[in-house]
Amino acid sequence: MRGKILNLLRSAGEKFISGEEIANTLGVSRTAIWKHIKDLRNAGYDIESQSRNGYRIASVPDRLLADEIKNNLSANIVGTEIYSFDKVDSTNEKAKEMARKENIPDGTVLVAEEQTGGKGRLQRSFFSPPDKGIWFSVVLRPDFLPQEAPKCTLMAAVAVAAAMRESGVECGIKWPNDILDTGHDNRKLTGILTEMSAEIDRINYVVIGIGINVNISLEEFPEDLREKAGSMLIAKGEKTLRVPFLQNILRHLDRLYLTVKEKGFAPIMEEWRKYSITLGQEINVIGVTTNEVYSGKAIDIDNDGALMVQVGEEIRKVVAGDVSIRPKK
Amino acid sequence: MRGKILNLLRSAGEKFISGEEIANTLGVSRTAIWKHIKDLRNAGYDIESQSRNGYRIASVPDRLLADEIKNNLSANIVGTEIYSFDKVDSTNEKAKEMARKENIPDGTVLVAEEQTGGKGRLQRSFFSPPDKGIWFSVVLRPDFLPQEAPKCTLMAAVAVAAAMRESGVECGIKWPNDILDTGHDNRKLTGILTEMSAEIDRINYVVIGIGINVNISLEEFPEDLREKAGSMLIAKGEKTLRVPFLQNILRHLDRLYLTVKEKGFAPIMEEWRKYSITLGQEINVIGVTTNEVYSGKAIDIDNDGALMVQVGEEIRKVVAGDVSIRPKK
Repeated sequence: MRGKILNLLRSAGEKFISGEEIANTLGVSRTAIWKHIKDLRNAGYDIESQSRNGYRIASVPDRLLADEIKNNLSANIVGTEIYSFDKVDSTNEKAKEMARKENIPDGTVLVAEEQTGGKGRLQRSFFSPPDKGIWFSVVLRPDFLPQEAPKCTLMAAVAVAAAMRESGVECGIKWPNDILDTGHDNRKLTGILTEMSAEIDRINYVVIGIGINVNISLEEFPEDLREKAGSMLIAKGEKTLRVPFLQNILRHLDRLYLTVKEKGFAPIMEEWRKYSITLGQEINVIGVTTNEVYSGKAIDIDNDGALMVQVGEEIRKVVAGDVSIRPKK
Repeated sequence: MRGKILNLLRSAGEKFISGEEIANTLGVSRTAIWKHIKDLRNAGYDIESQSRNGYRIASVPDRLLADEIKNNLSANIVGTEIYSFDKVDSTNEKAKEMARKENIPDGTVLVAEEQTGGKGRLQRSFFSPPDKGIWFSVVLRPDFLPQEAPKCTLMAAVAVAAAMRESGVECGIKWPNDILDTGHDNRKLTGILTEMSAEIDRINYVVIGIGINVNISLEEFPEDLREKAGSMLIAKGEKTLRVPFLQNILRHLDRLYLTVKEKGFAPIMEEWRKYSITLGQEINVIGVTTNEVYSGKAIDIDNDGALMVQVGEEIRKVVAGDVSIRPKK
């Protein structure tokens, strides 16, 4: 109902539309309309009212509200259901809980204005202050095998990098899924944490958590992050409207996920290569399970998303590990 | 404390031991001893008491009590912590919840006398009546990659098959993890359901759920299971004491898991081959994700646990699927 009222107000543009007209069009009482308008105002919509003329939207907030994000999204899978929260512990934790208990469908998106316990890889905490970033999770229920799930994280990186470039940020992907501001010392713009619950040959759900530093200035980062953290604000020198930017990410994710369902991950890897800043570089590798450290040249990724590294005569396949690009001498 | 009292009573054998002696040895009050004895009786221990002589164990119940299972187990990893329950929804669900919330360690075992919502693969319900089976889950926190986790299910099958043969059941493993009664029309003795929670390159936990039909007679199975279900009772024609049998499974699991940590899964695959009833047979395969159906000869498993099937000139690698052995003509 709220969405329908918003659509009516939106389509009226700058014109006022009377409560009676809204009530008649939607077949509910004027009192119900009045209550919904109140809710919308509480949610951050600036809705003007004039006793003779009715209502109009004075301004749409750049708040990450499900109704706003859904508007004109035309999602096939990713974004068909969207939940927005003011504050959560972590959108991944919330997503996993809802996936377990409420059976939310393939493509469900959860977004929060603030995370109080945002987490990155290896249980590291992830800085996610209110209103200045986009902290969200996407729940997927793919029918491919659990072994394929890690590639979802590369798919997510492609979606974010594509949307960032379209929004004017010079960026690239460092294998496997870091989005770096290539115009500003490769500062890190985004964190991605993919988790899954699976049986031996069947995925229950994959949760892709994505945290994007949007309108955070350098001074707003905690001191220990200031050296390496970046944001779209720092990259572009201006603020980004979050709702249309998130919509664009979701559209890319939707497109890529449909591609995976039809053709597998090979086209995703192809697109990943276009955004890569790792391939062709001399890199240092720290193996995650082995803790082995070595250097070599990143030459390609294979169709599993593994990084192929030339070490002397030998080509090593890096499935998991921390990779850093060696500064050019 | 209960475990200590049990050990004192056990070491006294058929002799009585006074409450005062127990209290002094353990440095607690006689009232405390009296309360613990009461608890032990409630848990199913038949403890005799004579006002002059004190206490002795008249009979130890064949109940799946943590204290009983721990007794003389000498676990390295699997079984170092054991939780027993009278009744749970499903030991896998309980194990996952405790792994999420209580950070239970690598090798923790959960066992229940009854599951009210036992589940098998593909969300099928799993018949798990009270007191006649062994329904348990093992929580592992291995440091190998998520891609390796499916092999845990083959490791579990080896442990169960080894313990079953030692207990006198003619049985073998049908790929990947069904334990069949080869003496009675390949009736199914055991269900194994392996689940995991993982990040892209790191396992949070693996839960191996194992359900074993121990002392269930054919008539006790629901009608729809009667054609294919088997039990150790049907296989051997006599009851099996559950505690020592479960202990033996846990010892095998502990041994195999230590081997994996030291040498990887190759030795497990070697042992799996010894118990296999699939290799060398003509089989039908239904691919799980593709639903493709075909026939061929099972020739081996590779070190990933995948089944190698010769189909005409071609060798296909079956990673996931339902396999049935074709009756010989």
